Amino acid sequence: MPDFRCVGLTGRLENAKAVATLQRVLGFLTKKGVGVCVQSSLKEVIGGVDCFLPLAEMGKACDLVIVVGGDGSLLGAARELAFYGVPLVGINRGGLGFLADIPPQQVEAGIGGVLEGRYQAEQHFLLEGEVWRDGQRLGGSPALNDVVLHHGTMARIINMSVYADDELVYRQRSDGLIVASPTGSTAYALSAGGPILFPSIDAIVIVPIVPHTLTSRPLLVPSSMEVTARLEHTVSENPQVSFDSQVNIGVQSGDLLKIRKHAHQLTLLYPLEHSFFESCRSKLSWASPMGSEET
Amino acid sequence: MPDFRCVGLTGRLENAKAVATLQRVLGFLTKKGVGVCVQSSLKEVIGGVDCFLPLAEMGKACDLVIVVGGDGSLLGAARELAFYGVPLVGINRGGLGFLADIPPQQVEAGIGGVLEGRYQAEQHFLLEGEVWRDGQRLGGSPALNDVVLHHGTMARIINMSVYADDELVYRQRSDGLIVASPTGSTAYALSAGGPILFPSIDAIVIVPIVPHTLTSRPLLVPSSMEVTARLEHTVSENPQVSFDSQVNIGVQSGDLLKIRKHAHQLTLLYPLEHSFFESCRSKLSWASPMGSEET
Amino acid sequence: MPDFRCVGLTGRLENAKAVATLQRVLGFLTKKGVGVCVQSSLKEVIGGVDCFLPLAEMGKACDLVIVVGGDGSLLGAARELAFYGVPLVGINRGGLGFLADIPPQQVEAGIGGVLEGRYQAEQHFLLEGEVWRDGQRLGGSPALNDVVLHHGTMARIINMSVYADDELVYRQRSDGLIVASPTGSTAYALSAGGPILFPSIDAIVIVPIVPHTLTSRPLLVPSSMEVTARLEHTVSENPQVSFDSQVNIGVQSGDLLKIRKHAHQLTLLYPLEHSFFESCRSKLSWASPMGSEET
Amino acid sequence: MPDFRCVGLTGRLENAKAVATLQRVLGFLTKKGVGVCVQSSLKEVIGGVDCFLPLAEMGKACDLVIVVGGDGSLLGAARELAFYGVPLVGINRGGLGFLADIPPQQVEAGIGGVLEGRYQAEQHFLLEGEVWRDGQRLGGSPALNDVVLHHGTMARIINMSVYADDELVYRQRSDGLIVASPTGSTAYALSAGGPILFPSIDAIVIVPIVPHTLTSRPLLVPSSMEVTARLEHTVSENPQVSFDSQVNIGVQSGDLLKIRKHAHQLTLLYPLEHSFFESCRSKLSWASPMGSEET
Repeated sequence: MPDFRCVGLTGRLENAKAVATLQRVLGFLTKKGVGVCVQSSLKEVIGGVDCFLPLAEMGKACDLVIVVGGDGSLLGAARELAFYGVPLVGINRGGLGFLADIPPQQVEAGIGGVLEGRYQAEQHFLLEGEVWRDGQRLGGSPALNDVVLHHGTMARIINMSVYADDELVYRQRSDGLIVASPTGSTAYALSAGGPILFPSIDAIVIVPIVPHTLTSRPLLVPSSMEVTARLEHTVSENPQVSFDSQVNIGVQSGDLLKIRKHAHQLTLLYPLEHSFFESCRSKLSWASPMGSEET
Repeated sequence: MPDFRCVGLTGRLENAKAVATLQRVLGFLTKKGVGVCVQSSLKEVIGGVDCFLPLAEMGKACDLVIVVGGDGSLLGAARELAFYGVPLVGINRGGLGFLADIPPQQVEAGIGGVLEGRYQAEQHFLLEGEVWRDGQRLGGSPALNDVVLHHGTMARIINMSVYADDELVYRQRSDGLIVASPTGSTAYALSAGGPILFPSIDAIVIVPIVPHTLTSRPLLVPSSMEVTARLEHTVSENPQVSFDSQVNIGVQSGDLLKIRKHAHQLTLLYPLEHSFFESCRSKLSWASPMGSEET
Repeated sequence: MPDFRCVGLTGRLENAKAVATLQRVLGFLTKKGVGVCVQSSLKEVIGGVDCFLPLAEMGKACDLVIVVGGDGSLLGAARELAFYGVPLVGINRGGLGFLADIPPQQVEAGIGGVLEGRYQAEQHFLLEGEVWRDGQRLGGSPALNDVVLHHGTMARIINMSVYADDELVYRQRSDGLIVASPTGSTAYALSAGGPILFPSIDAIVIVPIVPHTLTSRPLLVPSSMEVTARLEHTVSENPQVSFDSQVNIGVQSGDLLKIRKHAHQLTLLYPLEHSFFESCRSKLSWASPMGSEET
Repeated sequence: MPDFRCVGLTGRLENAKAVATLQRVLGFLTKKGVGVCVQSSLKEVIGGVDCFLPLAEMGKACDLVIVVGGDGSLLGAARELAFYGVPLVGINRGGLGFLADIPPQQVEAGIGGVLEGRYQAEQHFLLEGEVWRDGQRLGGSPALNDVVLHHGTMARIINMSVYADDELVYRQRSDGLIVASPTGSTAYALSAGGPILFPSIDAIVIVPIVPHTLTSRPLLVPSSMEVTARLEHTVSENPQVSFDSQVNIGVQSGDLLKIRKHAHQLTLLYPLEHSFFESCRSKLSWASPMGSEET
């Protein structure tokens, strides 16, 4: 059983409910006698704690980081903390969280259980995306969900060539391309028609966005393959690459987007009763039958 | 305002709840002093009424027919009664009814309103399907929702050629073909990937079932066109044509399935507050957002 | 049989082949003794003609306008000329044209046939879209294919409420919304998952772009309905409305996009052998079977 | 480099072309001095060879088996030979073969190369499906592509509960369910809307057939999981389970269908220039652009 001596606490500030939940988590941890460090950026809204740290420092100093927010908050923390191997646990204060799974009403039971070793640890691999121009690396970022190449301006299709380990997969005209991890398969890739992947599957999902051909289908390649998309001649004014919809890099014709499995994995802790399939059933309304049926 | 002197009553017998609702409708109509005739097949389970008629006779004798059941019950009544022009109203005792819309708890308000002239009359055109073999008409049926050509045996694809007004549309290998009315667009055709049509649109929807080509898409032709599907050489043992999933005709290679708009329309009466879009929202769960989003 | 005394000639300038075809059409018309006016903007590249007119003047002065280019060129001409009722015929010098159907090798046969009255006239209704802000009309345009509301910036979803004749259809989070005419059903709407409509069907197609819900489906409403989309609170920086992907208007939260059938229809002339289904078969590769099948 | 002392030869008999190709392969092997055994069932049509063996004996006696036919022929051979570990190579005499890849015109180059050690060996895992009734194993079969549960009679939906390692995935009403290997992802599962998997991905694909809910999506689970489908109350007369569409078992309400990764893998040999992505591009027409675009 692990010993959580230092627990980091982070979250989103946008609404009062999230702040209240952050404070409730802090109170519970303090009562439990656990050392807590809060993210520096929360200093003005969170009281009753001495240790404030930037997120990266938290990655070095803490054994566990609790994220209060939606999947968006968790995505941000994951990209920054994945390097340090520190496990994360999410308290859901956003929308329907696949990653941040503990409801705010169950802070004590959920976090208490984790502290006492009653949890499941789920490994989620991250992607690493890089943009290259004329042989130079222009920039890049890790991504927990997806790396997306997008026309960036309405109604301007882009042309691209997609490669897997330097072998041509296809040339395509479309609004864009989603390259997603299994974790990201239930996010944007799902909206674009991609399949749902159990989190432990070792594959990368490639899903075109509004492809201008009728024969395109979602494609899965082994996570050992490097996926490259070269932006061909385009009339779009400002095509972009986006990492988890949170980090953006502007691109232009001829640029290469290279995506591979990241060297580090994210460890997410869930309560023992957590079930991926149950999450799908409740969050994707799998139980909803369609009308027009006589039972 | 119409005057409903004779109201026909029909429905499904399979469960006690439907019978109880039938009885409740009968009681309400009797109290209102409306003449009621019940379908002959319900004689053994429904009491307190003198007039029993076969469905077809009801079509001649009555000004309105009330159907208690799901959409399936209403489909059956519609196919038989469409010839007579008698309007139908449905009390929902099945699944999520698009057609049978009045909930059983609101029998008095719903039917009462209709009797007093507070209703919307919605026209639904029917399809008419015929099977031809060697120049002979083998059989046929009207259909309110759809006419379906299907392989009939698991995992045996069929080949067909589809024509609209004798012009080739496409040749296809698939599990089958759905030809649906706007009414049927929210039923089986929707499951197979078809679009949703507002009931008054004057078009026929052609949707392939599991097409063995990646370029197939749902197709809409004007309701004035006759759609013909010729079953080409097939290894399936018992391909069939089905009308509203309720009437079946076995077919074989070389047979022609001809589908056109039926000469008669069905008039469905709905409470004034009925809204097609509201039905879609509630019955198709249009309000259900997907997970993985931060609001 | 109509008498084409004045034929307008327009087209795209971007490549030498299109210019050569324009010149070839001009030569053929001159030889036939037909009066020709060329669009003023082509003055520098087209020789051997005296009459140059702006497109709008051409609408008033000519009995027929020939467009050399792809569907894009034809869309532009159609939006400007629809008001004048002048029929168009397209010589295809772009990609796979659904609208511009006559191949450049068959200029003489195709145009010759039309001049002699051997043609089909196909009516295509246009849409009219308007953007309203605070009760003021901000701008608008006709559109032959579609009016599209789009987030305008990568990976930023928008929220919208969609109404048909002031009745709520649904609220939606998505990358955007396509409202298409039957003509537009084989263009962008098809890429986004919409059905194919025979050109004469009297309906408007509503197709969400990457909807953030699993229950969204393409929807058809009668062309008599006005479709309104209200842009709700959005974090997107520059959402836009686009008409045929050629005219754009920037929008912001609270703006209304109103779309209705345009008062004018476009008349397209096709050679007698033209067939919509044949166009689908050849241009959408309907004949392409999928692999993995034993015949 | 392997030494192929005994090569088995099998194939389909249905058409003269396949027989001619079989004879051509035999001639080539004989000329090369390789020992050849032909499948016993081909005795009447193939001459010039002494050794005839049933398929299973071939698995024991031979170092390589050549299959002449389409993917269907190869599926049949694979199911029987997988136990013996003997590698297969396919000469395509059927439709568009993903598995049988060597064109009949290139018998000498293709087979010659393999015999000389110039080939790629690709591992394809098989599925193993079993039907259980009242605690008894009713039957079962391996499957290279897929195990399919299907209503078996037109227009009769079935209800099922699907489990992964005994955990509920979902309950579903549909026409059926496809459980496919990566190899099968380009076959029937693709027609039903499933994604394409690179052959080496270690996952099982679950794709519903015409699901009667709008929220169903293809799902991938690790190949280490056992997938169970329990057929719930159904009105279908003869639901069936099918293995590679070639072996069928009738089922009834309450029966369990259990599917897991088979203990044995199939080794397929391909010429060195073989590429999975190239197969997709050519066999799925990935290069086909859609109409209505101006390039």
